[in-house]
Amino acid sequence: MAETIFSEMSRLASEHDAINLGQGFPDTPGPREVVDAAVAAMHRGWNQYPPAVGIPSLRTAIADHQRRWYGLDVDPNGGVVVCSGASEALSSAMTSLLRPGDEVIALEPYYDLYAATAALLGARLVPVRIHAPDYALDGDALREAVTGRTRMILLNTPHNPTGAVLSTAELQQVADVAIAHDLVVLADEVYEHLVFDDERHVPIATLPGMFERTITVGSGGKTFSVTGWKIGWATGPADLVAGVLGVKQWFSFAAGTPLQHGIAAGLTLPDERLAALATDLARKRDLLTDGLRELGLEVFHSRATYFVTADVAPLGVTDSLEFCRSLPERVGVAAVPNQVFHASPEGVETQVRFACCKRDEILADALLRLRKL
Amino acid sequence: MAETIFSEMSRLASEHDAINLGQGFPDTPGPREVVDAAVAAMHRGWNQYPPAVGIPSLRTAIADHQRRWYGLDVDPNGGVVVCSGASEALSSAMTSLLRPGDEVIALEPYYDLYAATAALLGARLVPVRIHAPDYALDGDALREAVTGRTRMILLNTPHNPTGAVLSTAELQQVADVAIAHDLVVLADEVYEHLVFDDERHVPIATLPGMFERTITVGSGGKTFSVTGWKIGWATGPADLVAGVLGVKQWFSFAAGTPLQHGIAAGLTLPDERLAALATDLARKRDLLTDGLRELGLEVFHSRATYFVTADVAPLGVTDSLEFCRSLPERVGVAAVPNQVFHASPEGVETQVRFACCKRDEILADALLRLRKL
Ligand SMILES: CSCCC(=O)C(=O)O
Ligand SMILES: CSCCC(=O)C(=O)O
Repeated sequence: MAETIFSEMSRLASEHDAINLGQGFPDTPGPREVVDAAVAAMHRGWNQYPPAVGIPSLRTAIADHQRRWYGLDVDPNGGVVVCSGASEALSSAMTSLLRPGDEVIALEPYYDLYAATAALLGARLVPVRIHAPDYALDGDALREAVTGRTRMILLNTPHNPTGAVLSTAELQQVADVAIAHDLVVLADEVYEHLVFDDERHVPIATLPGMFERTITVGSGGKTFSVTGWKIGWATGPADLVAGVLGVKQWFSFAAGTPLQHGIAAGLTLPDERLAALATDLARKRDLLTDGLRELGLEVFHSRATYFVTADVAPLGVTDSLEFCRSLPERVGVAAVPNQVFHASPEGVETQVRFACCKRDEILADALLRLRKL
Repeated sequence: MAETIFSEMSRLASEHDAINLGQGFPDTPGPREVVDAAVAAMHRGWNQYPPAVGIPSLRTAIADHQRRWYGLDVDPNGGVVVCSGASEALSSAMTSLLRPGDEVIALEPYYDLYAATAALLGARLVPVRIHAPDYALDGDALREAVTGRTRMILLNTPHNPTGAVLSTAELQQVADVAIAHDLVVLADEVYEHLVFDDERHVPIATLPGMFERTITVGSGGKTFSVTGWKIGWATGPADLVAGVLGVKQWFSFAAGTPLQHGIAAGLTLPDERLAALATDLARKRDLLTDGLRELGLEVFHSRATYFVTADVAPLGVTDSLEFCRSLPERVGVAAVPNQVFHASPEGVETQVRFACCKRDEILADALLRLRKL
């Protein structure tokens, strides 16, 4: 299997001492309480195997979070499984449900893991493209993508790399298709709390008839700015969650015990703390968007996530992959070409994703460096 | 997939407030320096994504360890991949190499993950039994197990659950078969430092012609008594290690950043510190072995690992699985039936594995409780 684009670009960034606006991770610490709780757990000696399904306090905190934020009734015993990051939740869920020859529908652009894991399983990812600048769901395209082999819709909202947030009306179209064809929805909602302005994240599991067919994936790393802790989870009905656990117990068995305690503490913080993180990130989105526009680039409005997509054609670029491979050495900035999130680069040859989750002075420096182009 | 035996028995232990001699994890803290380094990393803000392959300082520490202890020349850049526990190293390695229909030879009894992961991949585990009381390798049985579909030998030494340590002569027989049939050896050596008395662990990768066909798996959790940190690794030649990385980047992407820093600190501790942990564990092995013998049980001498196997037939037991399922409730002790490490329980119906890696007073209490039987 080829190296992930994130590894490649982060490696180039570090080789050339570049500002890394490629892989999505913040450069500021998360809530102090989260780190403090993990440290306290270590000092208490909570360093041995957790239950494969996750420590009880974290499972309870996740279930409470789903109830408090979304009114979802998730069972902490049977309806939640803690994983080694959202990546493992996604790969385990796919492994538990997909057989060779099955098809998975995903919005395109799509996170690279989806297609790679489908390929590993002998399944096929069927893309349904959403287009700049507004990235609206094309309901007809979605319905036409369904075949007799379709088993799953892999839905990502808030959406990486575009920053789109699916509306309830769009989600309803997805739900209608899932219900009509008896499909499972694997809902990658790791950016649920990184939503800007008046946007509101709606979990597809809250739509009528959807809870029982949806596996929802969340991320402690994304929510609390500790992406390196690799604590994610899947929630849903007992049968689907049992399938995820059944696989992930053989992948990594369990996720880091003290880090689970840290994330459990995070999930019990007042809701305002999460809102404050999102407000700060929205400001950074503006800084980066405005700066890139000043460089003459077309920037598509990002409504969520760590990311902003720009069209770099005005810089004379014709291939964003080549451009991103040379950027760290040329000007000391790393970014990710959106074409790697597509089955074919057609129509997005010159789109580039920049991460905005960096300190203001780092974003300013990156923009200065890009000015050299 | 069924629940792992470790999850089942640990759950029963906790439900009945039993002493858990089932799943293998110590109840004493590991070296202070290891926890201190992880805490320091968190306070420094090293909480974001590490490279998928592992942080450089840990990869260097692992390579240095392989050189210092075994004279193995492992490349920290390309010859080492850090994983979410040894479990992920094993499952990724198997996924990278096995195709449906392939056969994997493993010593029986075998760790449950081996057969489960083989089954997940459509491959078949072919057991070669080693027998109590001395658990010697039967070279003829090994050679007879090879077919045209054999792709890999999954070798576990020091051996869980028996506590066997393969001699160089036994390893040479495995190596001869691997070389003759061009097989990869996946060497699960997670108990490399938990070896007692005059036994010496020899990595099969050190035998002539073996490095280039061996993936060796190690465990920070087992070596430093932090089983809940889930930091393991695979080492070997660049092509095989690249295969492991190629898969595990899609399983979990990476393992917990601050915990990697902790394990890196552990691997640079003086060798005497590891020897002291093993000496202490050997003493516990004696306590448990002697105590079980005083109860009238036959106990097979364990030369390594966290575990001791006893035959509980003298207690009137005919099925160790049933026995272990009732033990937590009956007397407040949990243990693991060896038959779950076998394709068929025949010949091991009454064998039970007890973990000895517990505080002396806990072992004494467990023996008192078992006396009630
Ligand atoms: C797991 S590395 C990729 C991080 C990420 O979610 C992104 O940059 O899109
Ligand atoms: C990953 S849980 C099992 C721990 C272990 O290695 C054992 O008890 O054999």
